[in-house]
Amino acid sequence: MKHLIECVPNFSEGRDLAKVNALVTAMSGIPGAWVLDSESDADHNRSVVTLAGEPEAVAEAALRGVGAAAELIDLRRHTGAHPRIGAADVVPFVPVEGVSIEGCVSLARRVGQAIWERYRIPVYFYESAATRPERANLEDVRRGQFEGLREQVLRDPDRSPDVGEPRLHPTAGAIAVGARKPLIAFNINLNTNDVSIATKIAQAIRFSSGGLRYVKAMGVNLKTRGLAQVSINLTDFEQTPIHRVFELVKREAERHGCAVAGSEIVGLIPGKALEQTAEYYLQLQNFSSASVFESRLAAARETKPAASPAPEGAFDAAKKNPCLVD
Amino acid sequence: MKHLIECVPNFSEGRDLAKVNALVTAMSGIPGAWVLDSESDADHNRSVVTLAGEPEAVAEAALRGVGAAAELIDLRRHTGAHPRIGAADVVPFVPVEGVSIEGCVSLARRVGQAIWERYRIPVYFYESAATRPERANLEDVRRGQFEGLREQVLRDPDRSPDVGEPRLHPTAGAIAVGARKPLIAFNINLNTNDVSIATKIAQAIRFSSGGLRYVKAMGVNLKTRGLAQVSINLTDFEQTPIHRVFELVKREAERHGCAVAGSEIVGLIPGKALEQTAEYYLQLQNFSSASVFESRLAAARETKPAASPAPEGAFDAAKKNPCLVD
Repeated sequence: MKHLIECVPNFSEGRDLAKVNALVTAMSGIPGAWVLDSESDADHNRSVVTLAGEPEAVAEAALRGVGAAAELIDLRRHTGAHPRIGAADVVPFVPVEGVSIEGCVSLARRVGQAIWERYRIPVYFYESAATRPERANLEDVRRGQFEGLREQVLRDPDRSPDVGEPRLHPTAGAIAVGARKPLIAFNINLNTNDVSIATKIAQAIRFSSGGLRYVKAMGVNLKTRGLAQVSINLTDFEQTPIHRVFELVKREAERHGCAVAGSEIVGLIPGKALEQTAEYYLQLQNFSSASVFESRLAAARETKPAASPAPEGAFDAAKKNPCLVD
Repeated sequence: MKHLIECVPNFSEGRDLAKVNALVTAMSGIPGAWVLDSESDADHNRSVVTLAGEPEAVAEAALRGVGAAAELIDLRRHTGAHPRIGAADVVPFVPVEGVSIEGCVSLARRVGQAIWERYRIPVYFYESAATRPERANLEDVRRGQFEGLREQVLRDPDRSPDVGEPRLHPTAGAIAVGARKPLIAFNINLNTNDVSIATKIAQAIRFSSGGLRYVKAMGVNLKTRGLAQVSINLTDFEQTPIHRVFELVKREAERHGCAVAGSEIVGLIPGKALEQTAEYYLQLQNFSSASVFESRLAAARETKPAASPAPEGAFDAAKKNPCLVD
């Protein structure tokens, strides 16, 4: 596939799984687009769906998800721990292959227009798709949430949507449509139930309080497991790699006399982030994705369906290698 | 692709790159088979080619490589550091997807027959394809090399080939055809030029002298780089993972007052080995290939060309996750 994007719509329903299934079904069956993953959380009352495929097909799938959410979800009766302004709350487009972030911005803009035209739900553009700097941050777009924004939008021009009339949809609210890099949601559990330690570590590592540039983090109390957790969003893993974040958390935990008990990926992680991690810990030199069997096979199959000669430069590179297979 | 194998033929030519290119060309152009990699070493006077694709197509490519090697290489005039019995010296088949090791054994047996029928080169089966225990080890099959085996085969029935007459091909020798798991060739460089330390570490970690079960290792002197190297073949990375080998080398190096300066992969490494490594060092819980974006996309595209519903159990798994994306 030459042009490949990801889209991760978030919906304000995480308890009624029949409704979540209906949302997933609405986004399925479009040639060129696939539903890769769906995760729901009851406390947050929110679901995260991962779509991937060709840009136009993925955009259509996302649009249908937005329409289904407007039919199935009534925000006036929605409660949950997670901030939200819409039934379909956020719709970010993410470049994967053969598409730039600018390509995703222009796709986001067109999808925003289509959302208003089809469903009469107003749209705010965020992150790389933002039309003004103060809307780049999703937190700022969502300020006041559905209940607050519903009032403010009527009298404060600064809060007017980018597309549509300055009046929220009565039950579906508004939607933040954006373009961004792949996001890694990564949680690190500590061997303590003292959430204040997790909070201190989160403050130490996150950008907003002096930490690593592409890290957002907060301390969370995992009551059922009796553990404190550092919950992390990594917004650019190529600039701030996951292993550096992990090592920093480990070191900060030590300073408080505790240790990392384990960690978990929420949703999906790009293979490249795992390659980076292995490269770092194994101290690999001259390593690239071209050294990975599956990457090389995929490249060979894409470029030359029937045959491929030896890659250029392979012999030169090989001369350094003193040990041969078998 | 439902049935996918790898084949890594080794040829006794690593200096005349025009001949190596001719070998690669002979193996190219077969629908369903791809040449992924080719590495040559002048000291060993040997080249390693990586083929992958559908079993029958890969077998045909390997056979053509064997034929081309018989035409281009005269073992009577071959010198090099690496032991060898044939112009095409070893031809191992490796299961990748939808094929068992038994499937590769039966393919190896058929290819062995075809080599004798087409080119009149006798064949020995090794590793999982061996017909008797004393031939499982490639080192034992290759004992005496071309020059010694050429004499012994005439009078010692124990050294008779598995296929063909007990007489080596006058210029192309014999071929070891096998089936085995993926092999990782992994070299670890030390920050010392004292090769005796590398040798001691190799002895400590390898199976043959009490170390880890699926590790072969030796100390090597990298004269041009002024470094000593522990050169490792990992014959089953799922049982003896690469990170455990690396950590053991690091610890043994410490004991000699030196450190790991870096490491390198020779040829290609399976993506799964890198995932295992990241999983270990990041202390990931409940991690599998299903958490990797590219794996999930490939699976979605293979099973349902146009659409795929959310994977079963995704919601259950998600309930444990307290932090949602965006």
